[in-house]
This record gives sequence, structure tokens and C-alpha cells, in this order.
Amino acid sequence: MKETYDIAVIGTGPAGLSAALNCVSRNKKFIIIGPKQGSKKLEMAKKVDNYLGFISDSGKKLNQTFTGIIKRFNLNHLDTMVNQIYTMPDVFFIELKDGSTVSAKSVVLATGINMERGIKNEELYLPYGISYCPTCDANLYKDKEICVIGYNEDSIEETIFLSGISSKVYFVNMTKKVIDFDNPNIEVINKKPTSFELDGEKLLLNLEGDMLKADGYFVLKDSKSPENLVPGVEVEKGHIKVDANFETNLKGLFACGDLIGQPYQIGKAVGEGNICGLSASKYIERLNRR
Amino acid sequence: MKETYDIAVIGTGPAGLSAALNCVSRNKKFIIIGPKQGSKKLEMAKKVDNYLGFISDSGKKLNQTFTGIIKRFNLNHLDTMVNQIYTMPDVFFIELKDGSTVSAKSVVLATGINMERGIKNEELYLPYGISYCPTCDANLYKDKEICVIGYNEDSIEETIFLSGISSKVYFVNMTKKVIDFDNPNIEVINKKPTSFELDGEKLLLNLEGDMLKADGYFVLKDSKSPENLVPGVEVEKGHIKVDANFETNLKGLFACGDLIGQPYQIGKAVGEGNICGLSASKYIERLNRR
Repeated sequence: MKETYDIAVIGTGPAGLSAALNCVSRNKKFIIIGPKQGSKKLEMAKKVDNYLGFISDSGKKLNQTFTGIIKRFNLNHLDTMVNQIYTMPDVFFIELKDGSTVSAKSVVLATGINMERGIKNEELYLPYGISYCPTCDANLYKDKEICVIGYNEDSIEETIFLSGISSKVYFVNMTKKVIDFDNPNIEVINKKPTSFELDGEKLLLNLEGDMLKADGYFVLKDSKSPENLVPGVEVEKGHIKVDANFETNLKGLFACGDLIGQPYQIGKAVGEGNICGLSASKYIERLNRR
Repeated sequence: MKETYDIAVIGTGPAGLSAALNCVSRNKKFIIIGPKQGSKKLEMAKKVDNYLGFISDSGKKLNQTFTGIIKRFNLNHLDTMVNQIYTMPDVFFIELKDGSTVSAKSVVLATGINMERGIKNEELYLPYGISYCPTCDANLYKDKEICVIGYNEDSIEETIFLSGISSKVYFVNMTKKVIDFDNPNIEVINKKPTSFELDGEKLLLNLEGDMLKADGYFVLKDSKSPENLVPGVEVEKGHIKVDANFETNLKGLFACGDLIGQPYQIGKAVGEGNICGLSASKYIERLNRR
């Protein structure tokens, strides 16, 4: 049986790394999950002028310094994305992109915030055939027609993978690149999805007025909305709601950084990660004393 | 007439300096007040292991890096302590140790927390002759007997100053050093103050059972309790109460760092200073649009 970690930190941006650093201080058995490149947003920042101690450094340099702790402390690190987090009594199951799972007694969520809005009705019609994980759900659509709404590089690879299983894949191209799959099973659509609509039990995608009908839809982007990531977590105005210890409404689930509110700043993220790492550690210490 | 600053940041520890840095980012006319040496607590930390970006640095080095922004950005800086802050509509008057004042439209309080507890009844009997500012109040005690309860180096100098005005100075030595003033006007008492007591209108100091009677009392330590520093500020369990923007119950007064709660950590202080500097800047921007 695989081990259950004390804490799983989700996210390798400033908030997640700061939380991880504080789990090291408290000597906890933890894992950090997220891209080894760290924060894409920070990486692209030309200059960071307001994080105390690093004046006028490039975002790229700062990001490298931050992610450097993974090697320096030889952290348990998985360079992947999280697909979904399932909450059970006293344990969380974290489903990764490849469909495998990691279990932990507590979770620190620090995935940052996705500035792209979801598609209208995406939440509402989730049970009618919307998925975020090709690896998990591809087999549901064997020899059927599916539609991928693809926002990132990864979605291109996944589309090729899906085209080997489904009879036809519509690829709604949101990558901002010109894409030609050179594959008769894949049809690229260069229109924007405006909403999901329901026709009886059949889910349709409205593409700037044109209605597309598929058996299943995959929405593939770098990060998901918090509610989609952790079903049942309380969200207020698009941000996860936390208490003074940065614990969410779900016991043992903590959150920090851009996820929980503005301003979207490095200092704030690091400070909240600092508290979150300590709060999760104290949660584990209390759990172990029971 | 002296200028009124947009913002006065009180404190040169991690929280205050982070707030100042964010006032620079927002291009505000501000002043930072506090010792140029920065945080004494940080200075004495042997090793700091959980502030993201500075692994295993000495507190001393980190403190130097932090305070370095004062010179680097050529900040308006006063290397002194604040005696008291008076709240007026739309303006704060900040009384400094030498009795002079600075005015600002908003204030970021980041003075850290004093681990030493106040003397019992100190709050209660404040109007009966307890002072924190020799420069301001010495003349009230011309040719009278006073008592200095001295916790720091500075209190030794102030006692010498006071001995030139008063007929007699009792120096209650809380400095943890052996002190001999070699001055017939000064009597050193090496007992701990346990409480203030009122005998009619006359205030007495209980020194481990011995009662001392003086015309006035000066309590001289590095930092004061928040309520003494800013009369009227709301405090909960020893910490200043703030809202999500780190604003206190007094409009335009913000607070961050150890002052507002545990954990007492650098990352937390920097993060809160980050938000506080931005909140105060936005407060000023709103004020200027009126």
C-alpha cells in the first residue's frame, strides 16, 4: 500500500513553496505537487520590485531562487498537475493528471488563480459529459464523437491521444496558435466557446452562434476553478474562503496565495504560505495526539 | 507649516519595510519612522530557515538586506521612536520621542510586539501620573520626586536628564545590568514593580511588597502596548484587530506584523506589510479623488 503523507502541498508558486519550506521547519512528511518550473506568472514578470529582500530582480531569477528549494531540501516532489481532490474523513485523495492518486492527511492548496473564465453553464452541466481528464475518461468515448476545448500545449497532445480512441475529435483551438493536426479524425475549430446548452439529455456547445453536438467534452487548461478542483470547498466571489488559520470549510484543507484573494502579490503569497505551512503542521500534530 | 505625508509607516522591521516598499511601488509621499538598525529580534536570530528566497541566512544578514532599502530608495526616514499617535478626522499626529510631531493622512503600524507585559494597573491609573515621554512631561515634575521604571539603555540617559529637573529620581532597574549613576539625586532600586496602587489621589508603586511614593512615574521601554501607542484602537487578546484589508477600527490606520497576531514569522510580516502598503496607498488614492 502506498504511504499516506502528512501534508500534500499543491502548487509550486511562491505560496506553495513557502508553505513547503514551513513544513520542512516543522519536520513533516509531505509532498509538493506542481510543475518544476514554478510559477509561470512569476517567470514572465519583467521585474519584481516589491518583495522585501529582492529589489529589482527579474521574475525569472526570483522564480529560480524560489524553486531552488526543491533540490536544496531534496523535497518529495511530483512534477505534474492535479486533476481532482476527493475529501474523505481524515484523508484526502489527490488524483493526478495521469490518473494515479496520492493520499495525504491534510492539503495545502496553492494553485494560483486562473484568469481565464470558465465557459457559461460549465459548472451547471458538468454531469452531462464534461471532463477535465482524458486519461481518466477517454474510454467512456470509445468510437464516439468528442470535443476538446484546448487552452494549452498539453491539450494538443491529449487530442492526439483521444483521436486514437474516439471516432472523431473536434478541437476548439483556444491556444492562440495556428494548429494543423494533419489527422482526418481531428477537426480544428477556430471559434470561441460561448456556452454549453442542453437539448434534452444531449449537451451542445455554442461556438459564437454555431451549435456543436458531441458525446463528450474535455476542457483542458492549466488550472481549473477551485470548485472543480475540490468539490465541496466554499468559494466566495471566485476565491476560496478561509479562516484566520487559512483553513477552508473542509477540515484539514488549507489554502493560500492568489486562490484566496487579492492583491495578487508575491509577498502576500509567501506570507500566507508561511502561515498555511505552520497551520497544516499544527493540524497534523493535533491529529497525531488523538 | 510642515508637510502632511500621505502615509507614515511606523516600524523598521520586516512588516514596516515591506509596507514602505509597497508605498514606493504606488508612488506615495510617505515617511518611515523607526530605528535604522531595523528589527532587534531579527538581528539576534541565529539562522532564518523559512523565509522563501533566503535559506539558512543569519538574522543579522537578513536584517541588513531588509534595512538596505532605506538607503537604496532614499526613503524619508526618521531614526527615532514614536511616543504617541493622535487620531483626528482625516489626519494623524505622530508624536516622536523628542516631543516633535509628524502629520500623515494615514498610518501603517508595524512596531512589532512587546513580549514584556505591562505593570498591573498601568492602564487603569494612567491619568494619575504615568508618562512615557520625559521630553514631553519632565517640566511637570520640576523640583518634585519622580520614579523611572527603566527597561532599556535609553532609560538610563533619560534618568540623568530627569535628575537635572526633579529633586529626586528613583530608578527602578529593569535593564538586567548593574547600574551606578554616581549621582546623589538618583537612587537605584533593584526590585521588580508588581503593581500601581492608588492611595486617595496619590499613585504608589508596589515593588515586591515595598510601596514607593513619587509625584510622577516614567515607564521607559522599547515599545509600548498598542492601546497606549494609539488611544482608541481596538485590541483583541493583546493584538490589534484588523479587517481583510488590514485596516483597524480607526479609519486610515492600518496594522501588520506581530502586532496583529501570531505566528510571529518574517514571511507573515512581509506578506502583511505588502498588503498594508497597498491598502494604505489605495486609501490615499480614494481620499484624493473626493
